[in-house]
Amino acid sequence: MAQRNQDVVLGVDLGGTSFLVAAVDGRGKLLAQASKKTKAERGFEAVVARVAKVARELVKEEHIAPRALCVGVPGALDPSHGVVVKAPNLRWENAPLAKALEKELKLPVSIDNDVNVAVIGEHQFGAARGLQNVVGLWIGTGIGGGVLVGGQLYRGSHGTAGELGHTVLLADGPLCPCGGRGCVEALASRTSIERDVRAALKRGRKSVLQKSLSEEGSKLTSSAIEEALDAEDSLMLEALERACHYLGLLAASVANAFDPEMIVIGGGLASRLGDRFLAPIRRAAQSQLLPRRGHVRIVATELGDRAGAMGAAALASAMPRRRERVSER
Amino acid sequence: MAQRNQDVVLGVDLGGTSFLVAAVDGRGKLLAQASKKTKAERGFEAVVARVAKVARELVKEEHIAPRALCVGVPGALDPSHGVVVKAPNLRWENAPLAKALEKELKLPVSIDNDVNVAVIGEHQFGAARGLQNVVGLWIGTGIGGGVLVGGQLYRGSHGTAGELGHTVLLADGPLCPCGGRGCVEALASRTSIERDVRAALKRGRKSVLQKSLSEEGSKLTSSAIEEALDAEDSLMLEALERACHYLGLLAASVANAFDPEMIVIGGGLASRLGDRFLAPIRRAAQSQLLPRRGHVRIVATELGDRAGAMGAAALASAMPRRRERVSER
Repeated sequence: MAQRNQDVVLGVDLGGTSFLVAAVDGRGKLLAQASKKTKAERGFEAVVARVAKVARELVKEEHIAPRALCVGVPGALDPSHGVVVKAPNLRWENAPLAKALEKELKLPVSIDNDVNVAVIGEHQFGAARGLQNVVGLWIGTGIGGGVLVGGQLYRGSHGTAGELGHTVLLADGPLCPCGGRGCVEALASRTSIERDVRAALKRGRKSVLQKSLSEEGSKLTSSAIEEALDAEDSLMLEALERACHYLGLLAASVANAFDPEMIVIGGGLASRLGDRFLAPIRRAAQSQLLPRRGHVRIVATELGDRAGAMGAAALASAMPRRRERVSER
Repeated sequence: MAQRNQDVVLGVDLGGTSFLVAAVDGRGKLLAQASKKTKAERGFEAVVARVAKVARELVKEEHIAPRALCVGVPGALDPSHGVVVKAPNLRWENAPLAKALEKELKLPVSIDNDVNVAVIGEHQFGAARGLQNVVGLWIGTGIGGGVLVGGQLYRGSHGTAGELGHTVLLADGPLCPCGGRGCVEALASRTSIERDVRAALKRGRKSVLQKSLSEEGSKLTSSAIEEALDAEDSLMLEALERACHYLGLLAASVANAFDPEMIVIGGGLASRLGDRFLAPIRRAAQSQLLPRRGHVRIVATELGDRAGAMGAAALASAMPRRRERVSER
């Protein structure tokens, strides 16, 4: 046991709604995890304090001495300086996250893009173990991507590669939060599905979602989508089919461009719906794949909600050891 | 002179209409070049004989002793066996091109995808010298792509990466030769431009192209497009603007995915029209690029029609030396 705990690290998946902290040992074993609401509306310092508190409690309860921590963050980052340049879901701009957490936890802290860490999680511990070229597509309120080339994260020339959610799929189509038009994020994210469902309800279409979506501040969650599908709600079935069609075309475009061994689909809908989400994506992809690309495997996340925190832990493991940290203990 | 010619190689750009053979010395200097019609309709053996004849003549005239040859071929290849799996423009299937040319020329011969070699040409000798991550988009009768990652050709997991012409840009749009729908090749290739121009003429639209395109077996060549633009033909101006719009959206999607330092646009239209082709592509890309992707340079091929043959020569240079080849001379 003593040996196992010698090389423990922490990985954090920091979302706009909630965050998850995972403690992982040197052999990649998940020792413990804890999650809490982010409460982003309370501001940067409050969120940092909440994350630090959960991390400290985990360390205390598990009697571990982590040597590093990495956080996956949804947004545009400057990883080399540990700064979150812009994270709309967290309402942050130029937030010095790594420094703030280092101060709270007295640990080396790094940050990385939330989908990058999730894809690393699947590569280290999940569906894509041992593969060389892998593309991850994470579908949630937005759509993010992450690309592994030769088993390594491909970051591109300015650290911003893999923004596959902003691949144009319908030229001059619906407006995307990025300012462009017809990006797959504007067609197949949960936000886009909700937009389409609400528009149909407004046109008088019947649906089991009518009541819940008419409530003030209501949102179309993955679980509400699942319930509507279970009730065989025709509006929901159609909206999901359309989103999966676009996601399949994205998967095919991505396969034609990157020629990966595997495309991993993650996020709430993939975790929750599994093959109900994946099968129509595969069907649409097949209609658009070039010959000889048929052997790309399109699979759902294996780690589910843990992919980000586990991948962040893998990145924390890879951080250089600090001599002073060892002597402090 | 003797020293220069010690390490000469040949590069061939084999197109469906014509081919170009370039002799390049060990320092990357173009010594000589020759081109001829391919006459693909005469069949595989005849084309091999034509290429071999031009290569032999070049060797004789220039008094050079090349040690290797590489051919860029438009189609699906198996480079490790030197076989052209399928090249519709050449009407070849499972054609053992490398072996056939080796027999004719008594030289080691390798083959590679035509756009891959063109992008390597630009990287070794042209617009992208010294860069790390580069994407090439070659626009002709079809649209091909080539991707350099870390200064090396990125081939993907099955050797088929970079097929960026089959990126979906208009979901459920016009049928593409690949069998899919709405690929950029079906929207912005010279073939697609011709299809749109012919459709407009059929609807009664006036154009200077009316006469030439009504002739039996006529084709809309790059030079005909240039002439129509020079005459400020409104149909041609609109058709080109639309194609450039789609190409700009492709460039933006590609930049968001690969985050390269440079996107090089090649092929007949780029070589011939230069900024008349590039400026509207850049404009459309700008409207769709994520913030912080604005620094990607979108430029026209610097080597023009020579990019493929020069890049093929660079690949021939990189082929391992055969001891027996040296002793034979």
